[in-house]
Amino acid sequence: MPKEEVFTHILLSNQTSDNNALTPEITKEVQRALCSAATDDSKLLLLSAVGTVFCSSLDYSYLIGQLSSNRRKESTWIAEAIRDFVKAFIQFKKPIVVAINGPALGLGASILPLCDIMWTNEKAWFQKPYATIHLTPTGCSFYTFPQILGVALANKMLFCGWKLTAQEACSRGLVSQVFWPTIFSQKVMLWVKEMVSCSAMVLEESKLLVRSCLKSVLEDVNEKKMPHAQTTLEFLQGPGFPVQLPAGQNL
Amino acid sequence: MPKEEVFTHILLSNQTSDNNALTPEITKEVQRALCSAATDDSKLLLLSAVGTVFCSSLDYSYLIGQLSSNRRKESTWIAEAIRDFVKAFIQFKKPIVVAINGPALGLGASILPLCDIMWTNEKAWFQKPYATIHLTPTGCSFYTFPQILGVALANKMLFCGWKLTAQEACSRGLVSQVFWPTIFSQKVMLWVKEMVSCSAMVLEESKLLVRSCLKSVLEDVNEKKMPHAQTTLEFLQGPGFPVQLPAGQNL
Amino acid sequence: MPKEEVFTHILLSNQTSDNNALTPEITKEVQRALCSAATDDSKLLLLSAVGTVFCSSLDYSYLIGQLSSNRRKESTWIAEAIRDFVKAFIQFKKPIVVAINGPALGLGASILPLCDIMWTNEKAWFQKPYATIHLTPTGCSFYTFPQILGVALANKMLFCGWKLTAQEACSRGLVSQVFWPTIFSQKVMLWVKEMVSCSAMVLEESKLLVRSCLKSVLEDVNEKKMPHAQTTLEFLQGPGFPVQLPAGQNL
Repeated sequence: MPKEEVFTHILLSNQTSDNNALTPEITKEVQRALCSAATDDSKLLLLSAVGTVFCSSLDYSYLIGQLSSNRRKESTWIAEAIRDFVKAFIQFKKPIVVAINGPALGLGASILPLCDIMWTNEKAWFQKPYATIHLTPTGCSFYTFPQILGVALANKMLFCGWKLTAQEACSRGLVSQVFWPTIFSQKVMLWVKEMVSCSAMVLEESKLLVRSCLKSVLEDVNEKKMPHAQTTLEFLQGPGFPVQLPAGQNL
Repeated sequence: MPKEEVFTHILLSNQTSDNNALTPEITKEVQRALCSAATDDSKLLLLSAVGTVFCSSLDYSYLIGQLSSNRRKESTWIAEAIRDFVKAFIQFKKPIVVAINGPALGLGASILPLCDIMWTNEKAWFQKPYATIHLTPTGCSFYTFPQILGVALANKMLFCGWKLTAQEACSRGLVSQVFWPTIFSQKVMLWVKEMVSCSAMVLEESKLLVRSCLKSVLEDVNEKKMPHAQTTLEFLQGPGFPVQLPAGQNL
Repeated sequence: MPKEEVFTHILLSNQTSDNNALTPEITKEVQRALCSAATDDSKLLLLSAVGTVFCSSLDYSYLIGQLSSNRRKESTWIAEAIRDFVKAFIQFKKPIVVAINGPALGLGASILPLCDIMWTNEKAWFQKPYATIHLTPTGCSFYTFPQILGVALANKMLFCGWKLTAQEACSRGLVSQVFWPTIFSQKVMLWVKEMVSCSAMVLEESKLLVRSCLKSVLEDVNEKKMPHAQTTLEFLQGPGFPVQLPAGQNL
């Protein structure tokens, strides 16, 4: 995670998977970077990813391996790791700019509404196929997605595994703007430079105001829905799991 | 109301009107079906309608006939019937899939945001011409419509009798997707089959999470705004009613 | 501010600026007109503007002149004037129809979500370039804009000075409909006439219901965020102000 003079840059890169899947170790590392960026002199945080995928949710094969010994204890630990990861995003006070280079799935899509400016590559798409893979949604997405997209579309994603294209995500308010792949990185850096030309105080104050009513709701949702997340993880170990993703719903 | 193996199917069909208008008797029958479906082994509820109209709101000519004897008492009874009908939708725990075959008006449109997946025929349209027919809105629509469509568009429907097309309703989040008339029924059944392949527990748990923050608000809105609904029904009996719908705003 | 038989017409017209900028004197005059319209027999309020600009926010050059003598005291007075101006819109009980003839900026855009029907000229655009001019947002816009447009787009306006076109504003729910310049005034008057044909009681009752859940939140946001607005105004006097608007972001 390289550090620029005026902004912190977090790069998602899972060495053990092709799809930037999240393990509890990676979520902990992101939390440490957020914690460090909170107190240094950077004005904003840029979150981007290595490769052609932005983030393909939790690394389920890794999780199932971890769960083999003591199921209840381990699933509690993983659920807490997710909760703390989500909480770190909710509580971060400087603007978070996200460069979504490719597909964002599950938890990788759930964190987007917790960020502030989301620039998207035309090739990106968004999916939260929880019901179709026999799981309930993680993070605050069961609250934020219906809020942003409306219940009708959020449920189509949730219950029918609907893939949201970059254009749809933009026209419905999940992301800020879509750029063509050839100019994507250049445009993101142009806007980051524009933003860091603002006063750090004004950037933080503006985010504080925009998030003022939303922050406590999100914290509450993240805390109180913990039991559900845990149930989900315990369910992972049941005889019905792992299931095959329906055809055409894989990456 | 035929019953399939894995889902309950409610078919709106008003034998006494061409437009599937709602009478207190029909709303009671729907409530009974919802109550029965809540405890049986069906995984979801499919709501559709017979004919070319989905639902043309309350049957006002029927209501005015009923109101002739004891106005205050009768209008209280009708307002309570509406409140209980709306409450039954809010409290139903399994996913409700709606197949909107044609126009949905007034209360027939108000129930849509209380459902979960709304598949729409291209020929459908949506209207809540309360102010133009000199009435205030029923159900929770004065809360849900501005939430989903924004105050600017919700008020255009409310104050100007604006007809929302199927495409507009979809792009603004009132419905999940629009299908061409020729493939509409086929597509709806395809998605219903896809959904019932999910675990009943995951379907119910997912709906619970998505509705967790919204449910208590809707219950509160439905309970507390009762006096307004009653005022509206009493107004029905005033000298200014019935009024003619402005030209082009009839079905 | 001419008065029609059935509706009150407020015309924004700043004699001392080309862009209908708001001074505390003008906001007071609008408040007086709202106060008078609240109790007379008009059915609704029409808000429009003279010239090619709808409203270009606070008149900052005027404000800086005013602030020269006693900075803290004067900035408190101006912040209170803004708060009272916003409060007058929140508390107005009859429908407010806005005819947006041209660009609406800053506070001129912030008041739009407090109104009920917003008709827009194709030539209008919307901008809230607070962060880019090193200020935090005024009014309730930091609450209403993310609510209506979503955080992703609201932040693009706030942090990147993004100009929202009339069409974007309509498709995202900030305004009710866009008309071509040649028919704009005619269409607005047609709809105003249509609306005033409704019963005054139904118009007011409908607005009451639509705003019932939102009104207390807006009042709360307007009251509690006062310190921030004041900080902003004190900041106006700092060495970093006035700043140049980035090229292409002037009117």
